[in-house]
Amino acid sequence: MSEPQVTERRSRRGGGRDARRQLRSGGGGSASAPFITRGIPPVDILSDEATEIIETNAESILEEIGIDFRDDVEALDILRNVGCDVKGERVHFPRGLARQLCATAPASFTQHARNPARSVEIGGNRTVFAPVYGPPFVRDLEGERRYATMDDFCSFVKLVFMHPGFHHSGGTVCEPVDLPVTKRHLEMIYAHQRLSDKPYMGSVTAPSRAQDTVDMSKILFGDEFVANNTVCVSLINANSPMTWDDTMLGALKVYARNNQAVITAPFILAGAMSPVSVAGTLAQTLAEAMSGIAFTQLVRPGAPVVFGSFASSMSMQTGAPTFGTPEPAKVLLGCAKLARRLGVPFRSGGSLTAAKTADAQAAYESANTIMPTVQGGVNFVLHAGGWMEGGLVADYAKLLLDADQLSMMQNMVNGIDVSENGQAMDALRETGPGKHFLGSSHTQANFETAFWRSDMADNTTFEQWSSEGAVESHQRARTKAAQMLDAYEAPPLDPSINDGLRDFIGKRMEALPDSEF
Amino acid sequence: MSEPQVTERRSRRGGGRDARRQLRSGGGGSASAPFITRGIPPVDILSDEATEIIETNAESILEEIGIDFRDDVEALDILRNVGCDVKGERVHFPRGLARQLCATAPASFTQHARNPARSVEIGGNRTVFAPVYGPPFVRDLEGERRYATMDDFCSFVKLVFMHPGFHHSGGTVCEPVDLPVTKRHLEMIYAHQRLSDKPYMGSVTAPSRAQDTVDMSKILFGDEFVANNTVCVSLINANSPMTWDDTMLGALKVYARNNQAVITAPFILAGAMSPVSVAGTLAQTLAEAMSGIAFTQLVRPGAPVVFGSFASSMSMQTGAPTFGTPEPAKVLLGCAKLARRLGVPFRSGGSLTAAKTADAQAAYESANTIMPTVQGGVNFVLHAGGWMEGGLVADYAKLLLDADQLSMMQNMVNGIDVSENGQAMDALRETGPGKHFLGSSHTQANFETAFWRSDMADNTTFEQWSSEGAVESHQRARTKAAQMLDAYEAPPLDPSINDGLRDFIGKRMEALPDSEF
Repeated sequence: MSEPQVTERRSRRGGGRDARRQLRSGGGGSASAPFITRGIPPVDILSDEATEIIETNAESILEEIGIDFRDDVEALDILRNVGCDVKGERVHFPRGLARQLCATAPASFTQHARNPARSVEIGGNRTVFAPVYGPPFVRDLEGERRYATMDDFCSFVKLVFMHPGFHHSGGTVCEPVDLPVTKRHLEMIYAHQRLSDKPYMGSVTAPSRAQDTVDMSKILFGDEFVANNTVCVSLINANSPMTWDDTMLGALKVYARNNQAVITAPFILAGAMSPVSVAGTLAQTLAEAMSGIAFTQLVRPGAPVVFGSFASSMSMQTGAPTFGTPEPAKVLLGCAKLARRLGVPFRSGGSLTAAKTADAQAAYESANTIMPTVQGGVNFVLHAGGWMEGGLVADYAKLLLDADQLSMMQNMVNGIDVSENGQAMDALRETGPGKHFLGSSHTQANFETAFWRSDMADNTTFEQWSSEGAVESHQRARTKAAQMLDAYEAPPLDPSINDGLRDFIGKRMEALPDSEF
Repeated sequence: MSEPQVTERRSRRGGGRDARRQLRSGGGGSASAPFITRGIPPVDILSDEATEIIETNAESILEEIGIDFRDDVEALDILRNVGCDVKGERVHFPRGLARQLCATAPASFTQHARNPARSVEIGGNRTVFAPVYGPPFVRDLEGERRYATMDDFCSFVKLVFMHPGFHHSGGTVCEPVDLPVTKRHLEMIYAHQRLSDKPYMGSVTAPSRAQDTVDMSKILFGDEFVANNTVCVSLINANSPMTWDDTMLGALKVYARNNQAVITAPFILAGAMSPVSVAGTLAQTLAEAMSGIAFTQLVRPGAPVVFGSFASSMSMQTGAPTFGTPEPAKVLLGCAKLARRLGVPFRSGGSLTAAKTADAQAAYESANTIMPTVQGGVNFVLHAGGWMEGGLVADYAKLLLDADQLSMMQNMVNGIDVSENGQAMDALRETGPGKHFLGSSHTQANFETAFWRSDMADNTTFEQWSSEGAVESHQRARTKAAQMLDAYEAPPLDPSINDGLRDFIGKRMEALPDSEF
């Protein structure tokens, strides 16, 4: 498997102390690890007995209740041909068949970036962070809430490119509502390809837009490279409960046939779209995920596919989605185990909140989601930064506040170093009772790398903080976002590739109507 | 073991739906569980091999480096008599001796509250939340930062009494600097005894103040009850590294001799007071804790004692303590395992932050501490709410924001219900593909208790939130704190007991000088 040769040169920011300093200040650069690798096992809260009950229930759902595959005759034929009992659009999987079909899905795969140093491993003991996906609104650098534009989209892509907390450029970081729906996917894909060299997600809002994603990826990476490698991953949401529609199935087929990855993701507001219980939601999610993964493998055995879960719990008093509560965390940790047993990569989590501003509510709720996400060993994390208001708003300030937390997570899952240096018995012997360790040889040798340090936290005294204007964290983040955008430099791209992409976009723009669907 | 008979009647707030509603609104009442009981095992990030390395290193510290017991001849005699090698004030424990002496410490004990329904179990699979301890400043209901007063102290005790998130009234919830140091402990203990019926902590700033705590507890609970039961728990901090001073040893001896509980708590700013590594900090903490617990057991075998750990990591750039970072979380999870293996209850954690206001930084950092605290199975959690600015400030708003998070934690460690009702297969069969679950019989039967619900989060739409004044979470918390204080009613107390307490305080006030040490 060869590496793509589309970058003119490696980033001018090399390794060493300067690079580390730049990384700390969000200055980007290739010295950051391209993804997180765990040193400790994932947190497991589901007993093996409970797991087997849920797996049995998922098989019952697939066999007895069935899954709807809507408005897609080809999908129904494919499923009928392998032994499913198809009644109208409802597909009943004989017990064990879906799981058996999932067996050809890879346990882990590489998603290539145009900069080989940014390629990510999705699966196993790896975790990849991608930003928020889908908001029609932004909260901008002045703190105003307004509709998102293509300019905002580009700014988010730039910030995500620059911040070492993110491993992945994501997809619809916000909806550029100033462009027609029929055409905006072209500019979005191009922005990821041109403004960043991190891996990206593809369009799923129509099969033709999935094909545009594949075609533009071929221009960027080369036809042969794309034929043999995975260069994009895309989000195929089920209409829970237990329903796939033709738009999603159509996009799924385009990607799978081209060996590009999809995430088959039940999107569940528990209480409305699944039962008002964790175990019931787990069984339904597993059934939906297995049906989607099995279908992907029927389209192309061995195609990369990710078990997705997005679960929020509904306020049973108001009907509003709530975040940072215990039940979705349990669903996440439970699903992570179900995915491991199925032998496929897992997507879930994020920095989720219903808050309207980046206040304490936003941070508590986000932390309560991203912490189980990392502990549960989630492999691909969408919405890892920038998400506000239940996904309606992409917030510049919160993007950086969340990213700062993300940059802590490798350390969190490193495990505990018990090497001789980690044990530090020399320091203890050298220092002794009642003394301090600041001057010990061990401290001198280790202080630079010893402790993770936040870029966004203010740890100064009240007096210093006050004298500097008593600036709260969301305002510090806005200031930093503006500074980063000022300092942004595009990663190099071969001009002929850039011309090829613009030619393709120009031709597609001419061919497509302007409309809002 | 009889229960104390000091409440005139049970709280007028009984069980049922009304009580639950009141609890949700922070209205207090005895229907809340008096502590958290885990349904799932604690998170463990320390391999058995690594654990043994650290335990071996702790023995080496105790044997080779030694622990200083300063200005306490009696303590040195006690330790010499059991075979320690005492050189000056430095005590060397023969390998294995300290661990052996710890064996008489109970694995779990009951701390009685004057309201028996509020008594707490400290140890095993239980978690008890107590508020912030020690700040000389408050951030008040108007958002102003100023020195704390006795009025503030009483307000914090009232709020902690009323909020079901807290199980314990704590100790020095703030320092009432308007009272002389020599006398303020009397009013602090009385406030806990009179304004709350949750269990409380004792004074440790002098052996005589520890004795006052015991004497006042005897008035409240009766001499015989206190002789036979534990009614207070007190915080005995080591002067890390590896040093105990006479003030702390003196208070420890008073409490242990009276069968009252102490927490032997190394207070560590890693990098300064311990090596700049997790494994080194763990070994030192274990050595310090074992030396303190062993000494407690020599004073009175079987006396209740808690393995304490408070670890923050220092910014190696500025010297400032930092919170919510990975290393202290690892120390916490590691120490929790070391304490379980030692067979004693464990204290650590809290809702810790260096932030100056209850902004996103405050919430991220607090969540990053309280989540590992709960996951690690910490038994006694000081600073579980209200802590700001590295412990310099007790914040009214944050007290309630944190408490809201605490009220989620029982649910978080319940585990996943796989009963027939939890599995919800009937709901799945009744609903089927493409429908919603809102009207299903299962939802109707479970919606009231199905999902944890925050009291402080705003989950409404942006439009509704805006029309209601766009109030951020810290301001909502301030408003609620003021409402709660308006609605406060003291728990009933036998007037003769109250008179006895006031008589004692009056006599002690006369006997003690006014001074600031």
